[in-house]
Amino acid sequence: MQSKAVTLKQRPVGMPQKSDFDIIEVNVPEPVDGEIQVQNLSMSVDPYMRGRMVDRKSYVPPFQIGEVLSGGCIGRVVQSNHADFSVGDHVTSHHGWRESYTAGVENIERVGHIVADPSAYLGAIGMPGMTAYVGLLEVGALKEGETVFVSGAAGAVGSIVGQIAKLKGCRVIGSAGSQEKVDLLTSELGFDYAFNYKDGNILNHLRESAPDGLDVYFDNVGADHLQAAIMHMRPFGRIPLCGAIALYNDTEPRPGPNNLTMAIGLGLTLRGFIVSHFNHLAADFRRDMENWVTSGQINYKETIYNGIDQAPDAFIGLFTGANTGKMIVNF
Amino acid sequence: MQSKAVTLKQRPVGMPQKSDFDIIEVNVPEPVDGEIQVQNLSMSVDPYMRGRMVDRKSYVPPFQIGEVLSGGCIGRVVQSNHADFSVGDHVTSHHGWRESYTAGVENIERVGHIVADPSAYLGAIGMPGMTAYVGLLEVGALKEGETVFVSGAAGAVGSIVGQIAKLKGCRVIGSAGSQEKVDLLTSELGFDYAFNYKDGNILNHLRESAPDGLDVYFDNVGADHLQAAIMHMRPFGRIPLCGAIALYNDTEPRPGPNNLTMAIGLGLTLRGFIVSHFNHLAADFRRDMENWVTSGQINYKETIYNGIDQAPDAFIGLFTGANTGKMIVNF
Repeated sequence: MQSKAVTLKQRPVGMPQKSDFDIIEVNVPEPVDGEIQVQNLSMSVDPYMRGRMVDRKSYVPPFQIGEVLSGGCIGRVVQSNHADFSVGDHVTSHHGWRESYTAGVENIERVGHIVADPSAYLGAIGMPGMTAYVGLLEVGALKEGETVFVSGAAGAVGSIVGQIAKLKGCRVIGSAGSQEKVDLLTSELGFDYAFNYKDGNILNHLRESAPDGLDVYFDNVGADHLQAAIMHMRPFGRIPLCGAIALYNDTEPRPGPNNLTMAIGLGLTLRGFIVSHFNHLAADFRRDMENWVTSGQINYKETIYNGIDQAPDAFIGLFTGANTGKMIVNF
Repeated sequence: MQSKAVTLKQRPVGMPQKSDFDIIEVNVPEPVDGEIQVQNLSMSVDPYMRGRMVDRKSYVPPFQIGEVLSGGCIGRVVQSNHADFSVGDHVTSHHGWRESYTAGVENIERVGHIVADPSAYLGAIGMPGMTAYVGLLEVGALKEGETVFVSGAAGAVGSIVGQIAKLKGCRVIGSAGSQEKVDLLTSELGFDYAFNYKDGNILNHLRESAPDGLDVYFDNVGADHLQAAIMHMRPFGRIPLCGAIALYNDTEPRPGPNNLTMAIGLGLTLRGFIVSHFNHLAADFRRDMENWVTSGQINYKETIYNGIDQAPDAFIGLFTGANTGKMIVNF
């Protein structure tokens, strides 16, 4: 059996291009003892993958040129040679960027009963949703009634951050990159205030929307968003550092915020994290998030590209603002 | 009665100059009911005072032009019209930058029995010592056996940070601005490794002295020290942000570290603080530090200027590296 798959043809310099990727045919062997064969339903593209396209030491090793890329995906078992997996089971794994695969089960997880679209297990009920959950509640130590600002608020993580903060009785401000996204945040996702960061000054928007300052700034963006937020934090404010999408395509290191010393007098905490630092909370997260999704308290948004041929475009679209909510490639 | 006192003549621009200060004579009235009169023995000059010379909103209000400056001091009561204070009592207050004063007792503290030079209660057993103690143990959450780097290691705070870390069984690395200070750190204060940051590359020194990376970086300096330390932190490392003396005389905001995004994958915490955020630990601190000083486990260093006329020079010397340990003006 054959499957289409996406390889890294060359390392992107600056903004990734379609020509940095190749679509190839790979052989999908019959599963031997202990293996299963899976047909993917959906694959994920995520900003962190940009970092893996650079040849440097990081928290995940770099992708290799010419190899099939990897990333989150959800599929169904079509053949099983492992006692714990049955044909029809939904499974998640990192064998993304391909339509089908055969593999041992070490890093494959049975999802069990699902309460939403399978793709939601790559988004709101998956890694980005859990990133929002642990980043806001654990790293950000959010308390009821506080004021929260989240950047990239219409993205896979940001849109969940804002909705969890509303569930916790907070005032929520979000920034996004288009008027359409801004409208979505306030009309459908319950944000108290949203603005297009491309129009005017971030700090002015923060001063207008949160005159008493910010208790938590959930940083998905870095750069001038971070600097403006530091300027407007309340004493003992917390800044979960989750991502810096504004910087991911930089070819040279960019200076950091010029006002970091304000953290001293204000007693601010800036704390970086990745979701796997909090794997011990996975069961709590899934229970809470499935409840919130099925009760309609969390509204998950997806931008769907169809077919693996579209996967490079979907990935590139993460950096041009093409997605609202989770960017998904369906097969 | 008359007392000499120091006023701010004009706001310094960049490095403070002697001509930014005036020495005047002020009247010290007889204490009325509820007041005491104090003759200061020693006054403190501290880097944070530079911030108060700028006219901007901060965690302490700015000094006013033409007014007598204020700051930490220790003295003895010479007249008392308050039942709780007796002639001869040692008292600390913020009525520094003058030889004598008469005041109500609201912000004056009786020191009680002292176990070291009075000036030590402005240094190792005072605000800078407590800054080191809470910054390292609370903010830095230091654990036995970890590797600690402190900048400004020969200063009032840094010299105590390093010695507390050694007491806690840690490996300690320090940077300072002269060979003489570097020698003091390793020969008298027990540092495992020290270097002159003016010679060669900070990051190279860190790689050489701590090949497995840093668990805690206690930042007194900011700028390239902070950037180099971030580059060399271990996963889940902590960076107490205590000061940024390299930046205090800047006339324009300076860019921050260009590698702050490394905090994400490494799960680093950068947390600013000032000592008054931890006033609830004052009694614990005094008990521990007096024990460490009297047992010889903590060796406190002072650089002493004599006479109030020297106070501006002592203050300016903080920014030229003139002090080893606590900078003190004795009367």
